[in-house]
Amino acid sequence: MTSVTVLGLGPMGRALAAAFIAAGHPTTVWNRSPGKETGLDAAVAGTAAEAVAASPLVVVCVRDYAAVRAVLDAGALRGRTLLNVTGGSPAQARELASWAADHGIGYLDGVLVATTDAICGPDATLFASGPAHTWAEHRGTLAALGGTTSHLGEDPGRAAAFDASLQDMLWTSMSGVVHMFTLAKAENIDATDLAGHAKTLLGFFPDMIDFLAGQVASGRYPGDAGTLEATAATMDHVLAAIRAKHLDNGVLSAARAEVQRALDAGYGADGFGRLAALPPAHRRGRK
Amino acid sequence: MTSVTVLGLGPMGRALAAAFIAAGHPTTVWNRSPGKETGLDAAVAGTAAEAVAASPLVVVCVRDYAAVRAVLDAGALRGRTLLNVTGGSPAQARELASWAADHGIGYLDGVLVATTDAICGPDATLFASGPAHTWAEHRGTLAALGGTTSHLGEDPGRAAAFDASLQDMLWTSMSGVVHMFTLAKAENIDATDLAGHAKTLLGFFPDMIDFLAGQVASGRYPGDAGTLEATAATMDHVLAAIRAKHLDNGVLSAARAEVQRALDAGYGADGFGRLAALPPAHRRGRK
Ligand SMILES: NC(=O)c1ccc[n+]([C@@H]2O[C@H](COP(=O)([O-])OP(=O)(O)OC[C@H]3O[C@@H](n4cnc5c(N)ncnc54)[C@H](OP(=O)(O)O)[C@@H]3O)[C@@H](O)[C@H]2O)c1
Ligand SMILES: NC(=O)c1ccc[n+]([C@@H]2O[C@H](COP(=O)([O-])OP(=O)(O)OC[C@H]3O[C@@H](n4cnc5c(N)ncnc54)[C@H](OP(=O)(O)O)[C@@H]3O)[C@@H](O)[C@H]2O)c1
Repeated sequence: MTSVTVLGLGPMGRALAAAFIAAGHPTTVWNRSPGKETGLDAAVAGTAAEAVAASPLVVVCVRDYAAVRAVLDAGALRGRTLLNVTGGSPAQARELASWAADHGIGYLDGVLVATTDAICGPDATLFASGPAHTWAEHRGTLAALGGTTSHLGEDPGRAAAFDASLQDMLWTSMSGVVHMFTLAKAENIDATDLAGHAKTLLGFFPDMIDFLAGQVASGRYPGDAGTLEATAATMDHVLAAIRAKHLDNGVLSAARAEVQRALDAGYGADGFGRLAALPPAHRRGRK
Repeated sequence: MTSVTVLGLGPMGRALAAAFIAAGHPTTVWNRSPGKETGLDAAVAGTAAEAVAASPLVVVCVRDYAAVRAVLDAGALRGRTLLNVTGGSPAQARELASWAADHGIGYLDGVLVATTDAICGPDATLFASGPAHTWAEHRGTLAALGGTTSHLGEDPGRAAAFDASLQDMLWTSMSGVVHMFTLAKAENIDATDLAGHAKTLLGFFPDMIDFLAGQVASGRYPGDAGTLEATAATMDHVLAAIRAKHLDNGVLSAARAEVQRALDAGYGADGFGRLAALPPAHRRGRK
């Protein structure tokens, strides 16, 4: 069994170390503040460099890229493979990958799509990107982390880009869900009464995703199933209902503004997927 | 079989008339511009008042409430029941209901959750609100319109409020989906490659909806499954990825601003449902 080193024993780092241990990999751990290794059947290194020296595969999982840079020692890592699963942007991943290349370190970037208690279970997914041969070398070991491990491509930023895109959808939708409940509450509708109807509506989302993916992939945005003009009218009804209750309307107003840009550009008869092909707005002092 | 009158033969009005006819109801139709009734096996009235006189149940389905007011004749409607399925806000529905009450007209407000070709099929839903006895009288007839007909309560604005809440969620989420594809495209990720992963993520949405509904219904927003502080950090990663590609970031930025209001109010350790219980922001010149 390949030995593995885990740097960083926050909630996620601990879960990763536990998963490698459970799969039978000799595991070495290190954390900036001591004492976080309690209960893990791992070798505890006194320094990050010592921990790195113990294994050909080093997994780093700390708060952010600044912490990653603080933890990593290029000299100790030379000739080993680093899998970085710290959350960050595609650009940060690419930058770290080129730092690694400069120092003769193999680099894979990873994104864990899982909560800590899902790690090593069937619902956990590891997205990875980086050189195919590096992935091929370590994928067996990394299978310990979750039900799905997926190599998305050689561009080291690709895992983070997939993740950022999915998180964009997730948190925008979550905002929509919580705002649905906000408006409902103002209208004396119980969240639990509404939840069933909301889940029925969700039933159409897989088709909607495929439909929009098809429009974006083909670069054609026919409006037969609904035009941006009709969408604008519907959004205006909803915004009127929101404003009548003096609720915050920032999110849907921003979505409406995107639609307006399409209308202003003459795309009112197109379908919703057209929004993926608009030139970006001039920044209007947005954060 | 009860006879039914349909006022307005746009795409939706025609679909409704066809559904009543298919269910065997003697149907009278009227449309502002003549000729729209072609192909419908219905009696064609020369005026709206004549059409109203033909049936105890009158369904009005026109572009908007201004058109509804232009079409409806209070004298002709007295003693009959009006079902209005024109799209609008809860306040508009309540206003029309009180106009109807003032003129001795029974009133139900309806929302059709369906495209025109789904009408009378299993996927079509009619949400209705208004007096229970009026609903009881006509629900049998209205069953012709779709697989699900649901009386949501006596407040005439309630169907529109349900609908506005659901549409708020739907269009906010749709914006998230299309922006996911926009970011992915800028990162050279094929929409069709991403769609499968997006649908996997969707698999968690029913639980997420129930989870948020539970928080909102109970008025308690524990952060054990994820804090607003962590959400802010994630959104910032995603926004950084969006900005790095010079894409429009209005929708997620607005969602992030909502989260910031919660952080500023000291709720960083709470869960996402807390956003449903914030006082509204001061309007910052938003449309
Ligand atoms: N938790 C999840 O569900 C989840 C899911 C997906 C991805 N992730 C990602 O996993 C990473 C770790 O998350 P987490 O949940 O374990 O907790 P976290 O609070 O994000 O990170 C805690 C870890 O970072 C270390 N750290 C912070 N600043 C440091 C510095 N300047 N130098 C050295 N070490 C530093 C901490 O060490 P000390 O103990 O010494 O403070 C601890 O090991 C994050 O990037 C997160 O985005 C987490
Ligand atoms: N289509 C859908 O999938 C759908 C789904 C759910 C709800 N709805 C709702 O159903 C309603 C009707 O929609 P639609 O799709 O049939 O088409 P629409 O274009 O919204 O409405 C067309 C109808 O409105 C009439 N109209 C417009 N202005 C008028 C006025 N000032 N006076 C009298 N009549 C007027 C038109 O008459 P003329 O023919 O004389 O112009 C025609 O009968 C809308 O409120 C919409 O929100 C539609």
